[in-house]
Amino acid sequence: MGRWEPNARGRLEQAALELYIERGYEQTTVAEIAKRAGLTERTFFRHYADKREVLFAGAGALQELFVSAVAGAPGSAAPIEAVGAALEAAAVVLQERRDSARRRQTVIAANAELRERELIKLASLSAALADALRQRGVADTAAGLAAEAGIAVFKIAFERWLDETGRRSLAQLIQESLDELRDVTAGRPSAER
Amino acid sequence: MGRWEPNARGRLEQAALELYIERGYEQTTVAEIAKRAGLTERTFFRHYADKREVLFAGAGALQELFVSAVAGAPGSAAPIEAVGAALEAAAVVLQERRDSARRRQTVIAANAELRERELIKLASLSAALADALRQRGVADTAAGLAAEAGIAVFKIAFERWLDETGRRSLAQLIQESLDELRDVTAGRPSAER
Repeated sequence: MGRWEPNARGRLEQAALELYIERGYEQTTVAEIAKRAGLTERTFFRHYADKREVLFAGAGALQELFVSAVAGAPGSAAPIEAVGAALEAAAVVLQERRDSARRRQTVIAANAELRERELIKLASLSAALADALRQRGVADTAAGLAAEAGIAVFKIAFERWLDETGRRSLAQLIQESLDELRDVTAGRPSAER
Repeated sequence: MGRWEPNARGRLEQAALELYIERGYEQTTVAEIAKRAGLTERTFFRHYADKREVLFAGAGALQELFVSAVAGAPGSAAPIEAVGAALEAAAVVLQERRDSARRRQTVIAANAELRERELIKLASLSAALADALRQRGVADTAAGLAAEAGIAVFKIAFERWLDETGRRSLAQLIQESLDELRDVTAGRPSAER
């Protein structure tokens, strides 16, 4: 980032997360976010449609990442391997953002409307993954199941990653959760990892 | 049902589903539902809090069914087997209600707010299943994964059941989807069933 670029978007996100945690999401105004970031409201609205958008702006990029990783997986990859590749591609990007991901999760957990919005985001990601698998010629039900399984793994590994002290990377936790899901669905006992 | 019991609840549900499909969910009023059912608004509100409740009143019973089936599974049952028992218990109850389930699904698919509410219902069912598994001593991550896998199977089998011409029972489709999920997560090719 050059000197001429004040990273408005990142500063607004950081200010918003701080305020949502300090005062609560509902109580925070766009004016306060802009002020905390040392920017104007006009600048805020150049980057985000509203204060909720700050928390969900990354969803589109995540979906694109998922879809292109599935499309780019080797032709010989099984559906669940293509899904695994998508989750790991996302993990690499998210790995550096653990602190803000944690704060974001705290804000979302505290607000019913945001929890609903998060469920919608995950359902959209699952539908996009399933579509990307169908594009590879995966049959309808298998595509749906592999996508849902992938999102379940992503969600659970993500929560573990935020809860842990950072010993394991998100990519490791995703791989472990994929392995554990395979054991669980096979009815095999699976040691707590 | 005796002669003295006019089945107000069932009549209201049927009238509501008919009207939601004919006129749209948003456009339908409680007064119209009561009239179509040959009942009063007061009777409507004795059975349902609002017009949305008609579509989601079954969620509590479904959750209880899931939880008691998991709790009642043999101690030797693997987590995914306990989840399978829960899904099959629900399938037996739902099997007789295919026509209203289909109409309900049509109404929900057409309305964003209802689709969100349905996602919340499924997330609550998943959380309840995971809790019931933890009560059986299943470790945290395995419980979460088995519950999410179970809800994914339930959702996909349910959609197949509504789409099909009724050849296979919901219970059969659930069993097949569980088998297919096991194959998918193992990276094994799985014939379209």
